Amino acid sequence: MANLAELEMRVAALEDIESIKQLKYRYFRHLDSLNWQGVIDCFADDAVIDYEPGIRMEGKEDIRKHVKDKLLEHIGVHQGHHPEIEITSQTTATGKWELFVYHYLPVMKKGFRLGGFYDDEYVKTRGKWQIRKSRMTLIFFEMWDREPLKRM
Amino acid sequence: MANLAELEMRVAALEDIESIKQLKYRYFRHLDSLNWQGVIDCFADDAVIDYEPGIRMEGKEDIRKHVKDKLLEHIGVHQGHHPEIEITSQTTATGKWELFVYHYLPVMKKGFRLGGFYDDEYVKTRGKWQIRKSRMTLIFFEMWDREPLKRM
Amino acid sequence: MANLAELEMRVAALEDIESIKQLKYRYFRHLDSLNWQGVIDCFADDAVIDYEPGIRMEGKEDIRKHVKDKLLEHIGVHQGHHPEIEITSQTTATGKWELFVYHYLPVMKKGFRLGGFYDDEYVKTRGKWQIRKSRMTLIFFEMWDREPLKRM
Repeated sequence: MANLAELEMRVAALEDIESIKQLKYRYFRHLDSLNWQGVIDCFADDAVIDYEPGIRMEGKEDIRKHVKDKLLEHIGVHQGHHPEIEITSQTTATGKWELFVYHYLPVMKKGFRLGGFYDDEYVKTRGKWQIRKSRMTLIFFEMWDREPLKRM
Repeated sequence: MANLAELEMRVAALEDIESIKQLKYRYFRHLDSLNWQGVIDCFADDAVIDYEPGIRMEGKEDIRKHVKDKLLEHIGVHQGHHPEIEITSQTTATGKWELFVYHYLPVMKKGFRLGGFYDDEYVKTRGKWQIRKSRMTLIFFEMWDREPLKRM
Repeated sequence: MANLAELEMRVAALEDIESIKQLKYRYFRHLDSLNWQGVIDCFADDAVIDYEPGIRMEGKEDIRKHVKDKLLEHIGVHQGHHPEIEITSQTTATGKWELFVYHYLPVMKKGFRLGGFYDDEYVKTRGKWQIRKSRMTLIFFEMWDREPLKRM
């Protein structure tokens, strides 16, 4: 039978999995709200972003400088599905996700739909989980001219 | 080290988070099955629904009277993504979600696609979680004439 | 107040729910990666698949023989939403899910979009959860001629 200390470790792992899911969900909420500061706060100071095709940022300052221009003023949704979170130590974890995006970019006057896979790494600093590395590879990508989609 | 009573509280919080997710998932399952009684049972007696644009119901009787007509006989899916559930006491909780809808309304002969954010409140009564308040704000909304989509 | 043995059972149930979600998420990841061996490994030896319209396989050998031809070389995403996992014993569980698919089939030169409900059964063998039965009923189904969608 489990002793109390062992059981506490298992409960902490379940809590960490839930916290990391909520971290990623918060990231998507801020992204689709165009709340750029909220997006930046999800990342660790030494975070690396590597998204197909060709979007790469290294460190929080680089993310801060680039996140708004790179992501543009989209109207639509970024969805993170199928979280496979693995706790690798008390302060590190990995995560796989499937991405689905449906949005409109006013600057390009185009609609986009895409699917992809995330391979993430997370780190817990001062009791708070953040994204340390996020790599996204595309499954498919569609783009088309379209009438404007309005933000409600 | 945690004592048993403290650990039990943490386990109960994880169980509550899971129960609340399943409550919302059951709501969507009944909604997309057109099982209106199942939808109504997800709400507390004093529940308030406030969905953009302009859908408002106060109390279970009001929901009972309006839910079928308001939601119409849709064919399609309502998806709830990115649950951020916070347990605020042993009998209350809040939740943020991202909504995505793709469906056809036979009465209007139109297709719809929309994205939105939920801000929910939940209450536990006699051991069962229910939705007490559900507010949905739209991110975007599309509607188009289309050929009928058939329920399988 | 809970005793340690009772609390350990509750923690194990939460761990099982998380494991079963990750099993299904792994299934979708392998499916959308066209990793057929990975798909097959998600099923128990005596697994039964029953998907509308008319896709039926009985036993792992039957799945092995049919999975690649039946599912075809799709490009796109299969999404499993709204998991309602219920642990029915230490080695059995059930699950309800909502399915959403958006993909292109090169062989047919057609695009597909569909929604459905899963009713699953899971079994734990030698410490590992697998899918023993998966039944999927359609909500709606759309198919259209389209230009090729390319795998990235």
